[in-house]
Amino acid sequence: MSEAHQALCIAMVGLPARGKSTLAQKIQDGLAADGVRAAIFNNGEMRRALDRNDTTAPDFYHPANTEAAGVREKIAALNIQRAREFLRDGGQVAILDATNVSRKRREFVERQMHDIPLLFLECFNEDEEILEENILQKARLSEFAHLETRQATASFKKRIEYYRRLFCPLGEERNFIRQDSFLNTIHAIQILDRIPYFEQLRDLLVTDFVPNLYVARHGTSVFNLENRVGGDSPLAQAGHQQAKRLAATFRDTPLSMVFTSTRRRTRQTAAYVLEAQQTAPPLYSMELFDEIDCGICEEMDYEEVKRRRPDVHRGRVEDKYNFVYPGGEGYRNMRARIERGVRKALYLSGGSRHILIIGHRAVNRLILSYFLYRRPADVPYLYIPQDRYFHISCAQNERRIRLRPLLS
Amino acid sequence: MSEAHQALCIAMVGLPARGKSTLAQKIQDGLAADGVRAAIFNNGEMRRALDRNDTTAPDFYHPANTEAAGVREKIAALNIQRAREFLRDGGQVAILDATNVSRKRREFVERQMHDIPLLFLECFNEDEEILEENILQKARLSEFAHLETRQATASFKKRIEYYRRLFCPLGEERNFIRQDSFLNTIHAIQILDRIPYFEQLRDLLVTDFVPNLYVARHGTSVFNLENRVGGDSPLAQAGHQQAKRLAATFRDTPLSMVFTSTRRRTRQTAAYVLEAQQTAPPLYSMELFDEIDCGICEEMDYEEVKRRRPDVHRGRVEDKYNFVYPGGEGYRNMRARIERGVRKALYLSGGSRHILIIGHRAVNRLILSYFLYRRPADVPYLYIPQDRYFHISCAQNERRIRLRPLLS
Repeated sequence: MSEAHQALCIAMVGLPARGKSTLAQKIQDGLAADGVRAAIFNNGEMRRALDRNDTTAPDFYHPANTEAAGVREKIAALNIQRAREFLRDGGQVAILDATNVSRKRREFVERQMHDIPLLFLECFNEDEEILEENILQKARLSEFAHLETRQATASFKKRIEYYRRLFCPLGEERNFIRQDSFLNTIHAIQILDRIPYFEQLRDLLVTDFVPNLYVARHGTSVFNLENRVGGDSPLAQAGHQQAKRLAATFRDTPLSMVFTSTRRRTRQTAAYVLEAQQTAPPLYSMELFDEIDCGICEEMDYEEVKRRRPDVHRGRVEDKYNFVYPGGEGYRNMRARIERGVRKALYLSGGSRHILIIGHRAVNRLILSYFLYRRPADVPYLYIPQDRYFHISCAQNERRIRLRPLLS
Repeated sequence: MSEAHQALCIAMVGLPARGKSTLAQKIQDGLAADGVRAAIFNNGEMRRALDRNDTTAPDFYHPANTEAAGVREKIAALNIQRAREFLRDGGQVAILDATNVSRKRREFVERQMHDIPLLFLECFNEDEEILEENILQKARLSEFAHLETRQATASFKKRIEYYRRLFCPLGEERNFIRQDSFLNTIHAIQILDRIPYFEQLRDLLVTDFVPNLYVARHGTSVFNLENRVGGDSPLAQAGHQQAKRLAATFRDTPLSMVFTSTRRRTRQTAAYVLEAQQTAPPLYSMELFDEIDCGICEEMDYEEVKRRRPDVHRGRVEDKYNFVYPGGEGYRNMRARIERGVRKALYLSGGSRHILIIGHRAVNRLILSYFLYRRPADVPYLYIPQDRYFHISCAQNERRIRLRPLLS
């Protein structure tokens, strides 16, 4: 039998609000693009479809509530049965989208899937801010429509707490992957059986899917004109004009979210963009996208740096990538922060069609080098014009980065 | 005056056959894509257009031949004059494409361009194989049509030798860049004046321009079927079928060059491709593209590795990117070799529209990661299917990488 007709079962593992469903969807979409038939069997959806109104309340998830536990077991069993039918009828990859936090539940899955290769895929996420945001999004689901947001959030957190009591780390399972669903990194992996589609899946798990990410620079600032670094100066007159052109360029592109740094020059630029949109998208101003911290050189102009700190000038000329401003940052040690910012923007925007980041020169260089390879020595010299923007789109089968002009 | 109307003169520097004209052309094209008017003033072309038949012979370049030196000086002066006229009439960047190896000649350029920002750009290349190839290409120029290739090559080498005697390293010039024209890296840089378009140029110099690079894997080999690593096994039956599909896929794409490793499985795959082309392109089988050297594990199957060398198995599972096979290679230390291979393929193929590399799994992963950024930990798991190929195209304004199916 060729690989094309082999069956695989993937069982998700993880506390609520850890991005399991998003990852399951990404796997389904990624495999579909490759011609592999995958389907998701989601316990939560089935529970919400039940004709009872107590499954939202935390009590339904209390470990001592045996009646509710029985209902949840039945749902799990039913979904596993449906997954087996799907695989029997020519389906290739069945994804069980459920918490599967207890060893007992996972043993049950193992028994039911004893004749099919089985891979457990745990999602975890230790970023508090992302977690809060996810919980807030859950609280907006219709099942919480009868509660106020604060109550809904509290209720959902209690549910998480009950699941946490049952949580047993992966380890006894033959095949498993532990994935940081926020950073898109794999933290542990054990594969003892032959897992069909594994090469594809391994790559898929860490691949960013980005429909359309636009990366622009703030308009010319007062400090730009004065050749000064860092600081928090507002836009100069020319910068306002560039911001208007940026806004006009995206007028007919419905942006779902706009991200800036916390600096005035990026937020002022964003204001024009939001204003020009039919429906103003939410704006996230993140420190993660703040410009390189020039330490003791903040607000100096380049001539001043040369005169007062010839060591800094020399260090930058000799090896700009590895140079670190005294008391500040350098490209090399800024990289992780920017990667985190990009991941956060992508995570928060989910599968949004269009998102825009308005950043700074060094920031945008590092955003770009998250998508395209450049030698470290060349990264600090990437060309980031103020009157153009980058258009980035990525999937497993295509990655494309374009530098495009603003409308004039 | 806005930057758009500022003038710049770039004077190339370097011995013959170091890629000066190719780089000058790349600068002109790159700037043109950005709406900047650049023009090349090539001394060699002007010399060849002269109505005299002795400018090909080495004697014309002998330092003691004062009459010829006078002719060459006149050509230089005339080109500088034309460059100044171009800049006066609205041109933005004039590129003086000449050897400019002596300090005296460069002083002359400095005097003539005293009122225009002037950047010296040296091309050097220390790769003997590339140099030989370049000289061979020069020997095929029409100016050597009256000589046999061996004579033409010798004549050209003598000319280089005469230039070498005059060569004076850059250092006294105010603004200069020394570029390794083969590796596309910048080795020294000094900028004392304000150089218009500098940010653009700095990035352009190290940017690869690749119209269409196709990267495919050899068809399934006998060792692939036996799960064995390394070795030099031929294609299996399925591999011959895949190679035929690869050939059919590219039947109507006129390939200028095909590159393989020195291994049988890539050369056998290439044979089908060459056969199917209307005009068979030259084939380069390069050790630089040989598969990862598995050292003491060469020809073992994965089970054998696990049993006989559990340390190797563990090392690969724990950190595949940094793991090095005892007596062999690892991803990390293979990276420079593959980068060199890619650069060589791009350099040899010049601006060819279509080139194909038929590589191996680990090789292709590293070729891909030369163009797109992946975390080092993820590089050894990039998905490289045998029945698909990557289509890569790059310019300063766009970089695109697609995974495409073979014709079935």
